[in-house]
Amino acid sequence: MNKKKNITFNDIAKYTNFSKTTISRYFNNPDSLTPENQKIIAEALEKLNYKENKVARILANGKTEFVGIIIPTLYYQYYSEILTQILSTYEQYGYKFLVFIGNENAETEERYIRELLAYKIEGLIVLSHTLPSRQLADLKIPVVTIEREDKYVSSVNTDNYMGGVQASCLLAKHNCDILVHINSPSSEDVPAHGRITGFLDFCQEHGLKHEMLYRELGSTYESARLQLADILEYLDAKYAGMRKGIFISNDTHANVFLNLLFRKYGRLPDDYYIVGFDNAPISREAVISISTIGQQMEKLASEAVSLLVEQLNERKNMNSAPFKEPVHKVITPILYRRETTEKDL
Amino acid sequence: MNKKKNITFNDIAKYTNFSKTTISRYFNNPDSLTPENQKIIAEALEKLNYKENKVARILANGKTEFVGIIIPTLYYQYYSEILTQILSTYEQYGYKFLVFIGNENAETEERYIRELLAYKIEGLIVLSHTLPSRQLADLKIPVVTIEREDKYVSSVNTDNYMGGVQASCLLAKHNCDILVHINSPSSEDVPAHGRITGFLDFCQEHGLKHEMLYRELGSTYESARLQLADILEYLDAKYAGMRKGIFISNDTHANVFLNLLFRKYGRLPDDYYIVGFDNAPISREAVISISTIGQQMEKLASEAVSLLVEQLNERKNMNSAPFKEPVHKVITPILYRRETTEKDL
Repeated sequence: MNKKKNITFNDIAKYTNFSKTTISRYFNNPDSLTPENQKIIAEALEKLNYKENKVARILANGKTEFVGIIIPTLYYQYYSEILTQILSTYEQYGYKFLVFIGNENAETEERYIRELLAYKIEGLIVLSHTLPSRQLADLKIPVVTIEREDKYVSSVNTDNYMGGVQASCLLAKHNCDILVHINSPSSEDVPAHGRITGFLDFCQEHGLKHEMLYRELGSTYESARLQLADILEYLDAKYAGMRKGIFISNDTHANVFLNLLFRKYGRLPDDYYIVGFDNAPISREAVISISTIGQQMEKLASEAVSLLVEQLNERKNMNSAPFKEPVHKVITPILYRRETTEKDL
Repeated sequence: MNKKKNITFNDIAKYTNFSKTTISRYFNNPDSLTPENQKIIAEALEKLNYKENKVARILANGKTEFVGIIIPTLYYQYYSEILTQILSTYEQYGYKFLVFIGNENAETEERYIRELLAYKIEGLIVLSHTLPSRQLADLKIPVVTIEREDKYVSSVNTDNYMGGVQASCLLAKHNCDILVHINSPSSEDVPAHGRITGFLDFCQEHGLKHEMLYRELGSTYESARLQLADILEYLDAKYAGMRKGIFISNDTHANVFLNLLFRKYGRLPDDYYIVGFDNAPISREAVISISTIGQQMEKLASEAVSLLVEQLNERKNMNSAPFKEPVHKVITPILYRRETTEKDL
């Protein structure tokens, strides 16, 4: 047998003594054959060194098994964690992921998505905030977002409001005299905004002294450090002698704040209690471990992919019937008590 | 114009008054048209709401513009940094990346690569160590590896040997009495092994007291912490009163070691000097900044992609002529002096 020749259905039919129709059914609807016959054909393919040309199959049945992932940055460990979890669903579902890092450049992101559509990708998982969900819905392919504005598309989000309440409650239990939440200003339709409302509601309901510090912390270490150093001086001066409970928007920034304290005092001072958000690796790997509101990354990722797969299957069975209403799944956050609040650990 | 109808070359020809051949040339060899005519056709496509079907084009010319990236893990920031840099070349070259995280499972990795080949991906960038380069070369598509065994394929690597020398030299300049290198045992054909030989050669040539500590540090924080806590006790006991220069395999582990010292002594003790490797974000974001041998991530990534693109273009022009000998590019590391060695910073 000439190894360089491409193996055709004809060759396989001859080799196995099945008809070409049977061979075609093996590829397009294998369960219509008996397991024995499937096995005979599979073995023949191996013997013949058959290389499947999936591109030809795409044209035939429209399935590419490709899904696009749009991520804003990998700077925050939250994103690299969740990307890892999404990619690892390959073993379960077989979808292959085209990954794009947006860096908030809407034009490039739009161009990239247009290209993916031209390649007939089946669906899209979007974590970047660049394009409004109205525009994503207009793509007319299944889209699932994670932790971003999601009015017109299906989504999976952490219960950020509950997270804000959990963080405030933990700080209140430690009898903090003043509760402070440090966060970047955000629009109310972004799920993470719930951290702010959760914090404010809890403090107001329980009549706790509190302060909300909105600061644009930026997406580099240097900018976050500058801002947080400034905040540390402010808090040290304004609340001297008081027990300060600090809830910070994410673990990356909580780590920067903790390091600033260590550099100033050689340790976490007795009057500071810190809670971060995400349960990113840095919260465990910081100089002392950081209490945090854990996003269940594995669950967020697996729910997002399974929601997408549901939509993909629906679409195939109904021959592109209009989508149903968007589905919004909410994942409960988990409180991790660590050394920045449990000082006797 | 019926919006639901697929726009054909015929439609575009009619609309622009060009021939179908001209329209076809616009898609397959645009530079054969004048810029003015290119513009007329581009505007017509927009007017007609033309959606390119790239899958059909793939069948026609074999180009998918897809490149696979195989990465072992995103746990080390080194990998998420380099992945970010590779993905960001999209704007320059237009290649779209299918990303796979291997977790050292050779079987899944092989299956994934087989699938990518069936989809006619154009090339592969491999950072995982799972499959030998002999096997990668047999794939008969352009492959470039980064920082792994590369005998039979083209590669881009950091000059690890020089990095090992730089680290040792910095510690020697600070008059350390004993130089210690902590690293996982590795095969000699892995580029990172050069860190070990660079360290050993430098110490031997300069007659410096030194110790090589091989430890399997694992790929989780918990395993690294256990091993390094053990090493810290060992070093404190064996080299008490001596000035210890510690060169650690990567910044992630250097950070763990630094934190263990801070937890034990509340600061970096005067008799410890630490150098990491990679210039990963954690080296700047640690409790005090970590001196490190910087891998030029952006350069590693851009050289890898440009090497791949060279091979892709070569292949297209020569109609899959046999590849030339593998090319191995070497990138110089950069020494960053920070607080773990420059104590007066």
